[in-house]
Amino acid sequence: MGKSTIFFKNKPRIISTYTIAGPKEAQANVGKFIHETLIDDRFGEDTFEKAECKMLSSCIQKAIKNSGKSLNEIDALISGDLLNQIISASFAARDYDFSYIGVYNACSTIVESMSLAGALVDGGYMKNVVVATGSHFATAERQYRYPLELGSTRPPQSQWTVTGAGAALVSTDGIFPKILSATFGKVIDFGVTDANNMGAAMAPSACETLVTLFNETKTSPSDYDLILTGDLGALGTRLLKILIEKRGYTIDNHVDCGEIVYNIKEEEYQGGSGAGCSAVVFNSYIYDKLLKGEIKKMIFMATGALLSTVSTQQGESIPGISHAVVIES
Amino acid sequence: MGKSTIFFKNKPRIISTYTIAGPKEAQANVGKFIHETLIDDRFGEDTFEKAECKMLSSCIQKAIKNSGKSLNEIDALISGDLLNQIISASFAARDYDFSYIGVYNACSTIVESMSLAGALVDGGYMKNVVVATGSHFATAERQYRYPLELGSTRPPQSQWTVTGAGAALVSTDGIFPKILSATFGKVIDFGVTDANNMGAAMAPSACETLVTLFNETKTSPSDYDLILTGDLGALGTRLLKILIEKRGYTIDNHVDCGEIVYNIKEEEYQGGSGAGCSAVVFNSYIYDKLLKGEIKKMIFMATGALLSTVSTQQGESIPGISHAVVIES
Repeated sequence: MGKSTIFFKNKPRIISTYTIAGPKEAQANVGKFIHETLIDDRFGEDTFEKAECKMLSSCIQKAIKNSGKSLNEIDALISGDLLNQIISASFAARDYDFSYIGVYNACSTIVESMSLAGALVDGGYMKNVVVATGSHFATAERQYRYPLELGSTRPPQSQWTVTGAGAALVSTDGIFPKILSATFGKVIDFGVTDANNMGAAMAPSACETLVTLFNETKTSPSDYDLILTGDLGALGTRLLKILIEKRGYTIDNHVDCGEIVYNIKEEEYQGGSGAGCSAVVFNSYIYDKLLKGEIKKMIFMATGALLSTVSTQQGESIPGISHAVVIES
Repeated sequence: MGKSTIFFKNKPRIISTYTIAGPKEAQANVGKFIHETLIDDRFGEDTFEKAECKMLSSCIQKAIKNSGKSLNEIDALISGDLLNQIISASFAARDYDFSYIGVYNACSTIVESMSLAGALVDGGYMKNVVVATGSHFATAERQYRYPLELGSTRPPQSQWTVTGAGAALVSTDGIFPKILSATFGKVIDFGVTDANNMGAAMAPSACETLVTLFNETKTSPSDYDLILTGDLGALGTRLLKILIEKRGYTIDNHVDCGEIVYNIKEEEYQGGSGAGCSAVVFNSYIYDKLLKGEIKKMIFMATGALLSTVSTQQGESIPGISHAVVIES
C-alpha cells in the first residue's frame, strides 16, 4: 500500500498565528483567546463575502507581523475556503506580493495547508509559508443551504458555521511548536445523504485517518496529550468514538473544535463547523497551550465534508476527508 | 523578496500520462494524440457533471495502468477542477484507496498539482503521485455563464471550455521527462471585469510568472525549445506578447494550448479554455514530443482566472494566476 504519512526531518515550526472571529464566537469560552473579535460581522464591508475575505487577509497580515518577519521574507501563501472557487482565499492573496497556492478539501483545508507548508519548508524549498483558512456563517448558509432571509428552521443534527479565520506562519527558525508528520486522508464515503448532518458524513474519514496515523507513526492514543479534531460536532464526535472503538482504540483525550467553539445552546445544536472553526480554535486557544508547554504532543486533524449543491441535487452522497498533523511543543 | 521558484534536486519524472476528450476536441489537429475520445460527451452518465467526474477518474486509473505501477504503489492524488467545491476531483478520488490532496487555482491547477507533486516526490516524502485535472463545456457554461438551453450568443472575445481531462504520474523511477523546477505564481489583477474575456484577465499574470521564472532560474526564452501556456487563447496570447516585450523579452517559441486545441472556427472565437485544455494538450501531444526527444527543454505554464459568479455579481474584477514548471526530456 502507498503511504499516507510523511515525516519531517527538519521539523518545520509554527512560529506565529493570528485569529479573527465574529461577535457570536467572541462570547464563547474560547473567545477570550481569539486575537481579534468583531462587533460587526460584516467587518465594515458591504457584503458578507467581502467580510470573509477581509478576515482572511487581515489574519495573513497579522500572523506575519506577529512573527517579526517582514512581508518580503514570505515565499508563499497556501489558502482555501468554502466559497465557490475559493474566492475568499484568492482575493485575499491579491493583497500580497508572494506566491499563492490555492487548496480545497472543505473543512480539512487548514491541516491540508499546514501539511503542504510543512513539506515545502522541511524539504528546503521555501523558508516562510503562511497558511490560512476561514468561513462565514452568512456566506455558507446562503451558498450551501437557504437565504438567511427565509428564516428556515435548522434541524437538530445541524451545526453552525463559524464566522472566523485563522492564519499561521510555518518556518524553520526559533523555538516554537514543531510539525513532526502529516497524514493525508483518503476520501471515505459511508453513504450519508443529509446535507445537514456533517458530523455523520465526516466521522468515518476521521476514524480512517486516525487509524492510519497510529499505524504509520507506530503510536497509540496515549502517546498524545490531545487529539484535536476539526468540526465533527457533538454527534460526529460520538460517531467517531464508536467507530474507532471497533478498530481497537479508545480516545479519551479527544476534543473537537466544533464542540468547544460555542457554549452550545439550542441554536447551534451539534456545535460549530466550517473551515474557520478549527482554524480559529487551533490558532488561538490551542496554540497558546502549545507555547506554554501545557500540551507537549498532539494530533491536529481537520475533517471535511465533500459536497456541493449540485452534487446533492444530483443525488450524490457526501463523502468525507480528514488530514492530520502531529505537533510537538 | 521571497522566492517563487523551487528547484528539484532529484528531478521527479513524469512517467506516464492519459487523456480523454470530447467529440469536438477529437476533430482538431491535437485530437489524434488524445488517448481516448468520446462519441457521447455524457460518457454514458445521466448528467454532464458525472461525465466530467468519470473522465477524471478514468484518466487517473489509466495513467497509473500505463506506468506499469499497481494501484497499491500510489501514495496520493493531487487534483482539482472548475466546479464548485471541486466535486469532480473529490468524487473521482472516492474511487481510489490512496490519499487525496484537493487543489484549486482555476485553469492553472494542472501545473499547481504537478509542482506540489514534484516537491513531495523530490523531497523523498512520497514515491508516486498522480496529478489530474479536467473540465467540461456543458458544466462550465451552466455554472459560470448561462444554461445551454438559453442559446445565448457568445461574444467574440470568448473562449470555448474544453471537454476533457488529463492525468500524469509523477515518480522517481526510469528515463522519462524530468521536472527541473516549479515557479508558483502570484495573484495579478489588471482590473478586467468582463467574465467573457479570460485571455485579458490571465495575460498579466502569465507575463509576471514568466519574467519571475527567467529571473530566478537565470534563463532566457532562447534556452527553451517551447514555452507552452495553458489557455490564454488567441487574444490572451497577443496580450502576453505585448506585455512581455515591455519587460524586455521576445517569446517567438511560444505556443498556447487554447490556440491549438481546436482548429479555430467562429464558434470558439479565441480558442479553448478550461482546466482540461492544458491538461489534455500537454499530457497527449506535448508529452509525446518530450518522449520522442523532439522537445528537449520547455516551460509549461498554466494560466487561471480567479472568479466566481458571486465575485462578478459583487462587482469584483478578475485577477489571474499562473504557475510554471520547467521540463526536460
